[in-house]
Amino acid sequence: MRNDGRQTNQLRPVTITTGVNKYAEGSVLIEVGDTKVLCTASVEERVPPFMKGQGKGWITAEYAMLPRATHSRNIREAAKGKLTGRTMEIQRLIGRALRSVVNLQALGERTITLDCDVIQADGGTRTTSITGAFIALTLAIQKISEKTQFAKFPITDFLASVSVGVIVEKAMLDLNYDEDSKAKVDMNVVMTGNGKFVEVQGTGEDAPFSREELNQLLALGEEGITELIGKQRDVLGPIANRIGV
Amino acid sequence: MRNDGRQTNQLRPVTITTGVNKYAEGSVLIEVGDTKVLCTASVEERVPPFMKGQGKGWITAEYAMLPRATHSRNIREAAKGKLTGRTMEIQRLIGRALRSVVNLQALGERTITLDCDVIQADGGTRTTSITGAFIALTLAIQKISEKTQFAKFPITDFLASVSVGVIVEKAMLDLNYDEDSKAKVDMNVVMTGNGKFVEVQGTGEDAPFSREELNQLLALGEEGITELIGKQRDVLGPIANRIGV
Amino acid sequence: MRNDGRQTNQLRPVTITTGVNKYAEGSVLIEVGDTKVLCTASVEERVPPFMKGQGKGWITAEYAMLPRATHSRNIREAAKGKLTGRTMEIQRLIGRALRSVVNLQALGERTITLDCDVIQADGGTRTTSITGAFIALTLAIQKISEKTQFAKFPITDFLASVSVGVIVEKAMLDLNYDEDSKAKVDMNVVMTGNGKFVEVQGTGEDAPFSREELNQLLALGEEGITELIGKQRDVLGPIANRIGV
Amino acid sequence: MRNDGRQTNQLRPVTITTGVNKYAEGSVLIEVGDTKVLCTASVEERVPPFMKGQGKGWITAEYAMLPRATHSRNIREAAKGKLTGRTMEIQRLIGRALRSVVNLQALGERTITLDCDVIQADGGTRTTSITGAFIALTLAIQKISEKTQFAKFPITDFLASVSVGVIVEKAMLDLNYDEDSKAKVDMNVVMTGNGKFVEVQGTGEDAPFSREELNQLLALGEEGITELIGKQRDVLGPIANRIGV
Amino acid sequence: MRNDGRQTNQLRPVTITTGVNKYAEGSVLIEVGDTKVLCTASVEERVPPFMKGQGKGWITAEYAMLPRATHSRNIREAAKGKLTGRTMEIQRLIGRALRSVVNLQALGERTITLDCDVIQADGGTRTTSITGAFIALTLAIQKISEKTQFAKFPITDFLASVSVGVIVEKAMLDLNYDEDSKAKVDMNVVMTGNGKFVEVQGTGEDAPFSREELNQLLALGEEGITELIGKQRDVLGPIANRIGV
Amino acid sequence: MRNDGRQTNQLRPVTITTGVNKYAEGSVLIEVGDTKVLCTASVEERVPPFMKGQGKGWITAEYAMLPRATHSRNIREAAKGKLTGRTMEIQRLIGRALRSVVNLQALGERTITLDCDVIQADGGTRTTSITGAFIALTLAIQKISEKTQFAKFPITDFLASVSVGVIVEKAMLDLNYDEDSKAKVDMNVVMTGNGKFVEVQGTGEDAPFSREELNQLLALGEEGITELIGKQRDVLGPIANRIGV
Repeated sequence: MRNDGRQTNQLRPVTITTGVNKYAEGSVLIEVGDTKVLCTASVEERVPPFMKGQGKGWITAEYAMLPRATHSRNIREAAKGKLTGRTMEIQRLIGRALRSVVNLQALGERTITLDCDVIQADGGTRTTSITGAFIALTLAIQKISEKTQFAKFPITDFLASVSVGVIVEKAMLDLNYDEDSKAKVDMNVVMTGNGKFVEVQGTGEDAPFSREELNQLLALGEEGITELIGKQRDVLGPIANRIGV
Repeated sequence: MRNDGRQTNQLRPVTITTGVNKYAEGSVLIEVGDTKVLCTASVEERVPPFMKGQGKGWITAEYAMLPRATHSRNIREAAKGKLTGRTMEIQRLIGRALRSVVNLQALGERTITLDCDVIQADGGTRTTSITGAFIALTLAIQKISEKTQFAKFPITDFLASVSVGVIVEKAMLDLNYDEDSKAKVDMNVVMTGNGKFVEVQGTGEDAPFSREELNQLLALGEEGITELIGKQRDVLGPIANRIGV
Repeated sequence: MRNDGRQTNQLRPVTITTGVNKYAEGSVLIEVGDTKVLCTASVEERVPPFMKGQGKGWITAEYAMLPRATHSRNIREAAKGKLTGRTMEIQRLIGRALRSVVNLQALGERTITLDCDVIQADGGTRTTSITGAFIALTLAIQKISEKTQFAKFPITDFLASVSVGVIVEKAMLDLNYDEDSKAKVDMNVVMTGNGKFVEVQGTGEDAPFSREELNQLLALGEEGITELIGKQRDVLGPIANRIGV
Repeated sequence: MRNDGRQTNQLRPVTITTGVNKYAEGSVLIEVGDTKVLCTASVEERVPPFMKGQGKGWITAEYAMLPRATHSRNIREAAKGKLTGRTMEIQRLIGRALRSVVNLQALGERTITLDCDVIQADGGTRTTSITGAFIALTLAIQKISEKTQFAKFPITDFLASVSVGVIVEKAMLDLNYDEDSKAKVDMNVVMTGNGKFVEVQGTGEDAPFSREELNQLLALGEEGITELIGKQRDVLGPIANRIGV
Repeated sequence: MRNDGRQTNQLRPVTITTGVNKYAEGSVLIEVGDTKVLCTASVEERVPPFMKGQGKGWITAEYAMLPRATHSRNIREAAKGKLTGRTMEIQRLIGRALRSVVNLQALGERTITLDCDVIQADGGTRTTSITGAFIALTLAIQKISEKTQFAKFPITDFLASVSVGVIVEKAMLDLNYDEDSKAKVDMNVVMTGNGKFVEVQGTGEDAPFSREELNQLLALGEEGITELIGKQRDVLGPIANRIGV
Repeated sequence: MRNDGRQTNQLRPVTITTGVNKYAEGSVLIEVGDTKVLCTASVEERVPPFMKGQGKGWITAEYAMLPRATHSRNIREAAKGKLTGRTMEIQRLIGRALRSVVNLQALGERTITLDCDVIQADGGTRTTSITGAFIALTLAIQKISEKTQFAKFPITDFLASVSVGVIVEKAMLDLNYDEDSKAKVDMNVVMTGNGKFVEVQGTGEDAPFSREELNQLLALGEEGITELIGKQRDVLGPIANRIGV
């Protein structure tokens, strides 16, 4: 039995609220248990210098935690004057994952920046950010499509992410903070709607893991992601039908 | 008539929700019209080096805007690697204002940090931060008092803040963003529950203002702050009775 | 009686020396008691990016203290690698105040930077900077006008600034450092030649202040600024007659 | 056929030279094809603040590339004034991976810093760094053991790393730079001497990958790492026998 | 004939004014032609960490130019967020030169910081800084000696500095800015009262120089420094007699 | 007798290996005793902004030490976020010295950056960097000349550098680290093939030095540099004949 009564293959309650910001082209508040992330998608009609003149768009992401998103207060990165390695690693992951399901050619020369700000953290903030940012991104692209006709809707597939881990020899889905601190193996999985992997990041700092454990974790991850994509589909409603078509 | 139909001496709708963060000792989401600020109070049982050994506490504040709190996306200060002058000015103001109603001796050797994160901005973010942070601070001190007996409750008076300004020769209360951009004179007023000023900051960059205009603005500010303190009183309920006693 | 024998409404001795720098388009050493500020105005025939193509000029200011301008030596901001919040606040104030009396349209597409370097500090460095920088600015504009015919002299009015404060229930003009440290209320006032306010910044961190105290302070400030503008007029000589015409 | 004539499951030539630095407690120059990394291990008899008083040691890593390690010159991170996200991600990975095979309790209160400086880069610099740093680390610990008797040799197992990837539907081992740029899927695998995974990081930015592809890549990685550990064993000679005993 | 009518071996007019800052333990305004440097000496009763517990003192220097010390305005190093290489080189030189004539043992565990702020620059700012800082330092040590009895006066010899250079095949003393820009060889010489060299820094970026030219430059430098030390002696009056005794 | 058995006028063994980097246009590993510096020359077909449109090229240098190049590990400048004064001073020296033997007009609008990375340090790293960088630079220019016909080979003369110093009243050539720490006078000399000085930097922080000592040091330096240029000539082979022609 888990500390919050869940089954090993059970996600925490998921709530996704759209339209939470009156300025952003796409916005979502995603809550997975006590983890709450505000995701906004901002569209700019230009691309970064290294992408210029290719006729392609760009997707990038930024991630931050409010200082009191956690048990004890963290010093702001703006006050420190630099991003931590952890933040950089996470925002590179979110951007890379989202780009894997966007047809940048179809998007055209524009940049969409996904800001994932963690309001409250209880484990899984990077995976929750990906799951939420995918919706904010889709909403923003839908909004562009209302003004500009795309030859092809630029989102090629669904995308969601979840954490899995091994706690006392038992593989578990969607770790909360307490579980995460006790996990011997910790893995983040990002998958598409057609069941393929975009990112698999497994770490056994406290104890190396076997091929068998890896397989169990991937299976749990797949199960959780399927469920999350179902929820994304519900939230997006008719827009969901434009994806990958 | 104002662009949102208000009277010149009318505040925008104010909503204050407490307990919005499960970790912070005090937390508030304050909404004034479309301006939304999340204020958390974090208690640490130590003081900064320059305060050590004086038997007194310290109150400090930090302020930030989420990148898409505004019409167009702002670059994060953490990405720039430094705080802007505007941010520093605002967080110094919030801290100074709050300290004016705290008996630091009574608080004892602990630091309370007020984090004011602007989720959405539509004018008046610094004044709204002060009004909200006062409640988060009071809740945090109440929480300390449940474990530690204070000889005297360390909050000496209520404190709230509002913006006022002159638009086309007319003094107005609580400017929204559109009004703020058009104002010739812009003033932020911070007052206590007993009707005294803690901060008066008036700027006439576009047009200097007369003593008479100043008087009108101060009168409007006083009116608005009285109303805001009424709302703070309602939200705090019985805790309100401990203030200044 | 004040610690230096002055009346409550008496300024410290003021000395203004022009032409103290052989390169700057305008330069002034202003001494108010033991506070000494070197103000230089530098003209550049271009405007910052955000002002480009509007046919208007720009006025900006920078402020710094030499490390041993004060009782004990301060670490240089260049060595720390960043400006303090106090410095940013002050330089924003100086720039804003000066812009209020410049017709940027008449100035044309050029930037004037006012550098206010505090050689020795004994209270009132920001207000003294404004009073001195106004003269350096006027001299620089006069110098431009000797080569370029302005349709209208771009300075629209005089501008000076002074500090006022309440010490043991008594309002006083032009606080020196010792007075400033004891003041319960501290206010900086910036006014124009026609008696209007450009900035009013009053802070009662140690004790909130009443409307009546505010009125006394503003009256004292007005008195001091009138006297300072008289001195500016003397120093500028015939150039004074071009202002606001 | 690969661009350098290798089989899909063939490593590039590997050369490991020890004792290349006269000051470092352990040092290695590792060459995998044209990728050359200098790894030094530096021992300090203290631990970072967050580890103090636990009686345990700490292993950390830093990674950098010389400016002309690559086709075109890179700007030094020291000149930019900050580490890139890529560098931070890599040095966090190296440190984490090495710690997984060190008994920090047995090591005692000392820190070993592994510096991995890429002299020349031709793909696989992070995996090569891990494989080389493991030897430098082991040599440094051996050196400590010559002066200080360990109850137990603190290295618990061998550790090596290799990259694998999918190029035009074909899984391949140990990608060089050209292959890496063309790979649709890119994976870094870190394994121990007993065949368990410490890190699995697979990315399909350009094309999501199936479970089957993942399995092929893991099999190739395992094969390569087994061979690399054989080479580590040869280089370490009798010291190899102390590992994991 | 030189551009200002001087002989090749003639210094510009030198004026040294002491006591120009009411807080600093020693202060000097030194003017060499149109070059003006404000030098203050600040005493602290502690030494930097690397000097602790040795019973010895420390002398250090900082150098800066006001933004408009030069023909066109320079960006402040504080605004850039870092010191330039030139500034670091100069302040290292000043500190090193001064330490060569201080008996750090006799000084005891205290630090004296020499701040050299260039008010106006017309060539030779680093050499003028050294010549002026030596006096500020001596005055500060004299001031300490009035409260604390030194077993031995810690200044062991006089110290001054001057620039020399080759312009169109002619060696010249004390270059002004125009001369400096045209010089093929540029040399800074620092010497003691007993005619020995502390620093010789000669640079022939535009044209390498011969042994003979070097000898001429050193002879000129010696001549100029002898004259400067005469002026230092005059300014110091009776304090001069304590030096090197 | 010196600590390594050398005569006072004897260089340490010198080894120069070219072509050590497969990407750089010129590369050299230079070893002088236990000091080892990797020098690469990188060519870019553009010049820095301040050189634009003059039809001339630019030569610049960067210098760094690997963290464990020294007895105890140094913190990376990239981790500190800034270059030390020592590094800036050295890289300015290397660039300046090299430019003195390059005809920038003949080079044309391109930049060559010399990276000098100290792999192992045992005294004389800056002088060794200059001697090695000269060869890397010449090789790079030779490489350019294979594609682009120069009207005149842009290297005008040979250039090498060595350190000299006074240890216990004895002048010595090419100090190693132990000698350098004991030297009372420390001098770096840079000379050209025709026996002229490019840089002479002598420092007597611990004891001022006489004209006679200076002469002895310069003579020793000249002797050492003549020998180093002989070695450069050997390494360059036929390319040597293009220099200064």
